[in-house]
Amino acid sequence: MRASLAIGVDVGGTKIAAAVVNRDAETVRLLRTFTPQDSSDSIVSAIGGLVEDLLSSDEISGLRPPVGLGVPAQVDFGAQKILFCTNLPLEGGDVVGDLTERLGLPVVMDNDANLAALAETRLGAASGCTDVVCLTLGTGIGGGLVLNGRLYRGSLGTGAELGHIVIERDGPECACGARGCLEALAAGPALARNARAAIRKHPESLLATLTGADPVDVTGEIVAEAAKKGDAVAIALLEEVGNVLGRAMASLANVLNPQVFVIGGGMIEAGDLILEPARKTLSECAMQGVLPGLRIVPAALGNNAGYLGAAVLAFEHFDEGG
Amino acid sequence: MRASLAIGVDVGGTKIAAAVVNRDAETVRLLRTFTPQDSSDSIVSAIGGLVEDLLSSDEISGLRPPVGLGVPAQVDFGAQKILFCTNLPLEGGDVVGDLTERLGLPVVMDNDANLAALAETRLGAASGCTDVVCLTLGTGIGGGLVLNGRLYRGSLGTGAELGHIVIERDGPECACGARGCLEALAAGPALARNARAAIRKHPESLLATLTGADPVDVTGEIVAEAAKKGDAVAIALLEEVGNVLGRAMASLANVLNPQVFVIGGGMIEAGDLILEPARKTLSECAMQGVLPGLRIVPAALGNNAGYLGAAVLAFEHFDEGG
Repeated sequence: MRASLAIGVDVGGTKIAAAVVNRDAETVRLLRTFTPQDSSDSIVSAIGGLVEDLLSSDEISGLRPPVGLGVPAQVDFGAQKILFCTNLPLEGGDVVGDLTERLGLPVVMDNDANLAALAETRLGAASGCTDVVCLTLGTGIGGGLVLNGRLYRGSLGTGAELGHIVIERDGPECACGARGCLEALAAGPALARNARAAIRKHPESLLATLTGADPVDVTGEIVAEAAKKGDAVAIALLEEVGNVLGRAMASLANVLNPQVFVIGGGMIEAGDLILEPARKTLSECAMQGVLPGLRIVPAALGNNAGYLGAAVLAFEHFDEGG
Repeated sequence: MRASLAIGVDVGGTKIAAAVVNRDAETVRLLRTFTPQDSSDSIVSAIGGLVEDLLSSDEISGLRPPVGLGVPAQVDFGAQKILFCTNLPLEGGDVVGDLTERLGLPVVMDNDANLAALAETRLGAASGCTDVVCLTLGTGIGGGLVLNGRLYRGSLGTGAELGHIVIERDGPECACGARGCLEALAAGPALARNARAAIRKHPESLLATLTGADPVDVTGEIVAEAAKKGDAVAIALLEEVGNVLGRAMASLANVLNPQVFVIGGGMIEAGDLILEPARKTLSECAMQGVLPGLRIVPAALGNNAGYLGAAVLAFEHFDEGG
């Protein structure tokens, strides 16, 4: 029997969101709590508590909704195990097994960037598309791929690390250990590094004025603010982000020939100041055969993409018989 | 009813190969002819003649085998039309429609690099794998992707242009119009360009001696010959190819998380002189999560991959009801 409701849980570095979602992708009820930082058991306990609170509500009483779970970790989807998790103590624990036992409900888990891509494809900026590349620009650059209408995870479930394609062979060192990755050139820390250099070079700029006494404090938000006010130094910094992003998208377009790139994350607040140079570079650098109809659009679901994608996964996974 | 035999046709720049292939992937009969260069009609006529010759043989008399056709062109697989073809006058013509009418048999067409990837996955170096990246190193660098056990073509059928991922942001200009693509750094012409520079710098090297009076004549074969005889200059040139290839494979591994890279094409004659530095660079540059079990292997089917892949496509496509 197809469930009429699902529960989507998004485990973030600081907060956990859990919601009851219906087949029309409407959020029936949403709860949040802080993410325990000490152990996998504490995190499982916090998730379990949130879901039990949701289950006690009138709308869902007596139903047995499937649970989808998004985690900020590399996940072996076939084995339903967490392989790597840098920000939370989730490695080693059996999150899905523990939750299944506690809740007595079917539980399925995936990487949070995959679930955001699924949500944007089914419900958001890429609705109706079958081949979708999602990039999330923030402190790091995350990615998700929908190919032939389904999430593509790779043979071990560790693919779609789209921030780690090389753009500049001997470029700056990346957190992943390689050099010149997209993330090392275009994520928040790279923008801040470039901004500090630009402020030293252009102390007369609005950007320098806005950062006050110490250019060490410059953030992406301040660069975006200065750029929106017309500061040429800040505009050039965001153009550089867009330019690098456009080259990465050209590589991805030549390989995957998607219908759409969906760009999310905090940095996308800068909007067309990043996306316009990205579109220009993409159209200059990608092959002609992959360009017809190809769009670059901002993500539509914001922070809700995580739990919505988790709920969509729960519906789709258990519709198929798990 | 499932056909017991299929016909695979591989249209190359200079030759057309057509073969009757059985369900065990055995080549029952193989014919070749030169590729007409003047018009799409002439090429269709040459293919039609070869296939009719095959059909007249005793083994196949009275059967109606499906026909698979590989072309050196970008193909819109859904529409079964040729979008771009740089080496032969195939654009604009309706090759599949014309052949279907002439032969009275079901015909399905795809890009030749896709079909080589399909053949290597079903019958060759990647047998048993579901997620496979094939790279063909020659005058250009071609690619084919098998993802989740099936050829991945992208939304317009123009994906898998694996030679055109950027490795060096402001690197040498590529035939595709962009800069610093894998092809611009590691294909035959790039190797020859680097070899000419190395010969000028090291006139005492074995490589310089082997090229004789004019370093303009240097080829990949000569570089491989000198390297196999221990010439340090030639070895370094092939290491550079492997190094660039390894970085490209790291990007592709991070995105696609395949089980295996299959490397084919003329340049692969150099074997481990290219593949060993490629393996080393891949393991240094790719993320840890995509490395377990990941292999780099030479292609197994050589020039036969084209018609074998075309026959496999014909079986699989028409088994599914076309």
